[in-house]
Amino acid sequence: MSRFFHTRYANLVPYTAGEQPRERTYIKLNTNESPYPPSPRAVAAAKEELTRLQLYSDPTAKALNERFAALVGVGADEVMATNGSDEILNFAFMAFCGADRPAVFPDVTYGFYPVFANLHGIPYTEVPLKEDFTVDVQGLCEAAGTVFLANPNAPTGIALPAAEIERILAAHPNGVVVVDEAYVDFGAESCVPLIRKYENLLVTQTFSKSRSMAGARLGFGIARESLIRDLQIIRNSTNPYNVNRVTMAAGIGAIEDETYTRENCAAIVKTREFCTHALQKLGFEVIPSKTNFLFAKHPKIGGESLYLALRGRGVLVRHFGAPRLTDYNRITVGSPVEMERLLAAVKEILEETT
Amino acid sequence: MSRFFHTRYANLVPYTAGEQPRERTYIKLNTNESPYPPSPRAVAAAKEELTRLQLYSDPTAKALNERFAALVGVGADEVMATNGSDEILNFAFMAFCGADRPAVFPDVTYGFYPVFANLHGIPYTEVPLKEDFTVDVQGLCEAAGTVFLANPNAPTGIALPAAEIERILAAHPNGVVVVDEAYVDFGAESCVPLIRKYENLLVTQTFSKSRSMAGARLGFGIARESLIRDLQIIRNSTNPYNVNRVTMAAGIGAIEDETYTRENCAAIVKTREFCTHALQKLGFEVIPSKTNFLFAKHPKIGGESLYLALRGRGVLVRHFGAPRLTDYNRITVGSPVEMERLLAAVKEILEETT
Repeated sequence: MSRFFHTRYANLVPYTAGEQPRERTYIKLNTNESPYPPSPRAVAAAKEELTRLQLYSDPTAKALNERFAALVGVGADEVMATNGSDEILNFAFMAFCGADRPAVFPDVTYGFYPVFANLHGIPYTEVPLKEDFTVDVQGLCEAAGTVFLANPNAPTGIALPAAEIERILAAHPNGVVVVDEAYVDFGAESCVPLIRKYENLLVTQTFSKSRSMAGARLGFGIARESLIRDLQIIRNSTNPYNVNRVTMAAGIGAIEDETYTRENCAAIVKTREFCTHALQKLGFEVIPSKTNFLFAKHPKIGGESLYLALRGRGVLVRHFGAPRLTDYNRITVGSPVEMERLLAAVKEILEETT
Repeated sequence: MSRFFHTRYANLVPYTAGEQPRERTYIKLNTNESPYPPSPRAVAAAKEELTRLQLYSDPTAKALNERFAALVGVGADEVMATNGSDEILNFAFMAFCGADRPAVFPDVTYGFYPVFANLHGIPYTEVPLKEDFTVDVQGLCEAAGTVFLANPNAPTGIALPAAEIERILAAHPNGVVVVDEAYVDFGAESCVPLIRKYENLLVTQTFSKSRSMAGARLGFGIARESLIRDLQIIRNSTNPYNVNRVTMAAGIGAIEDETYTRENCAAIVKTREFCTHALQKLGFEVIPSKTNFLFAKHPKIGGESLYLALRGRGVLVRHFGAPRLTDYNRITVGSPVEMERLLAAVKEILEETT
C-alpha cells in the first residue's frame, strides 16, 4: 500500500473472488454461475435499452422495485435494488453495525462478511458451525450484535427452516438480523414472509444464480419500509445511480419470465441430485445441498489435490484453504453435460490415485 | 430513520440527484446528459455481451482497463474502472481521508463531496470560491488535508489550467490531490500527464458525459500504480464485480470509437458557444464554460422563478438553493434543436416578466 493509504486499512485483506480465467476454455464450476443463459425476455428488454444509454437510470429504480416487490409479495417501499447483493450486504454492515455494535455470523459462511466488517472497523463474533456443519442457531441467538446468516449457507449448501431463523429474530428484538438468500431459489424456504412479523429482518437476494444474471449485477434488499429507508440513505450517500439502465431492464424482463426461472431451477435441482448420487457412488461424502453447488470430500484424496488435478483436466472447482474446509471442494452444479465431464475427470483422477 | 440505524448517521443528508421525471416528456437539460446516443460500436459490443450475462464479469476488468489506459496514455496498472465516477470518488474518500485527515474542497463544487465526507465521518474544510467564482488556488494550497477539486468546476463550468493545479500538488507532498475531470472533454486541460510527475495525484473521469453512457455507469481512477493498488484494496473489500459485463463491453466499444466522441464533444462545444451568445443577447450573465453546461443568471428574474417557469413550459434545468448560487440556473447543453426550444421559452418568460 502507498504511504497515502489510511492506516486504518493496514491489516485489511480483501475478498478473494473465484477465478475468472481468460486463457483457456474451462468447464467452469467454481463461481456458482448458472449453466443456462438469461431469459430471452431479459435479453430483449436489455437490448431495447441500449439506445438510451446517454440518459441516467432512474435513481429510485421505481419500475424494477415495483415488479420485484410484487414477485416476492411485499410492498414497493419494502425493496431496494443494488449493484449485486454484495452491495446491499455492504450497506447493511454500514447501516446496522459499528465499533459499538458488532457483527455476528457463523465461522464458516460467505467469506465476504469478515471483509465488510474489517473494511468499516466493525468488530465481529464468529459462531462455530456444529460438527456436522449445521448452523448453531442457539449460538446465534445468544451472541450480541447484528446477525448475518446465509441461508442456505455457503460453502456447505445446508439450509435452515424458517422456523429456526424465527428463533434468531425473536432473540434479537433490538438488533437487525440479515438473512442472505443468494441460493434460496434452489430448494430452501425463504424468510421474506417473516418481514410482516419482524421489523428487525432484512432479507437479501440476488439475480446472479437462479436468474442467470451474474454478469449484470443485480441484488435486492427486502425489509420493512423503515429499514429500507435507512438503506436508501446509505445508498443515496454512496452511489444514487448504483444500478445501470440495462440491468434494470434485464431485471424487469427476468421477473416477467418467472416460468423460465422456475424451469431452470428445477433442472439444476435435478442435476444436483443426480450428481450427488454419482459422487456418493464414487466414495465421496457429499453434504446435502439446497443450493446450486455441492460441497464434497473423498477419503482417498485431499481437497487441494483434487482441485489441482481437476484443473489440470480443464475443470475448475473452488477449494478453500480454511482448516475445517480444506478436505472439501465446492462444485457448482452446471449443465448435465458439464457434470458428466466432471464425473469422468473425477473417475480418472481416483483411478490414478488408488 | 429506524431505531436500528447507527447513530453516527443521525445528521447525514444524502446527495440530491437531478430529477429523472417519468411522467411527461421534458426537454431535459438538468443532469448534464449528452444529447447524442452512445457510439454504435458501444451499442454493438454491449448487444454481443447480453447472451453471456450468466457469467460474472472479469473482476480485474483487464480488457477495459488496458484500452482505457492506452487511450489516456498511461500504464494498464495505473487505471481502475468503477461503477460511475461517484464510486471512485467514494473510494478515494475512504482510502485517503479519515477522522484525523480532513477533506478539502471549494465551497461551491460537486455537491457530493460533503456527503461522502459526512458518510464516513470525515471532517472537511470548504475553501470559498473567489468573488468571480474562480477557485482559490492559494487557499487550496494552504488548507491541510486531502484536496478534492472538480476541474472544470461544477456548477460554475470554470476550468483551471493544469499549471495552477500543479501548485496545489506541489503544496501537498504528503497528501493526495483528487482532480475530478467529469467534464474535461469539453475544452479543459487534463491533469493525467501530471501523474508522471506527482505520486500524490488521482484523476477521476467518467463516460457519462462525453461518451453518452450515463445510464451504463462507468468511471475511472487514473494514478500511479501505488495509489491504484490502495483503491483496489477498497474496491475488492466492497464490490469486486462492481462493473457489469455489458458496461465493460460498451466501454471498450466507446474507446474504439474515439472519433465519434471527439465529434460529439466538438458539436456540444459549438452549441454551447452559440447558446452562450444567445443568452447574453437576452441579458443573461453567463459564466464562461468549459463543460457541457452553462451557469447563468438574469437581472430581471430570480433563479428559482426562471427554473419554475421553464419547468411549466416543459424545459427542465437545475436550480441550486445555496445562497451564492440561488440567482443562477445550470443549463445542460443539449442538441441545437433543444437549445432553440430553451431560448424560445426563455424569451417568452422574459417578455411576460418585464
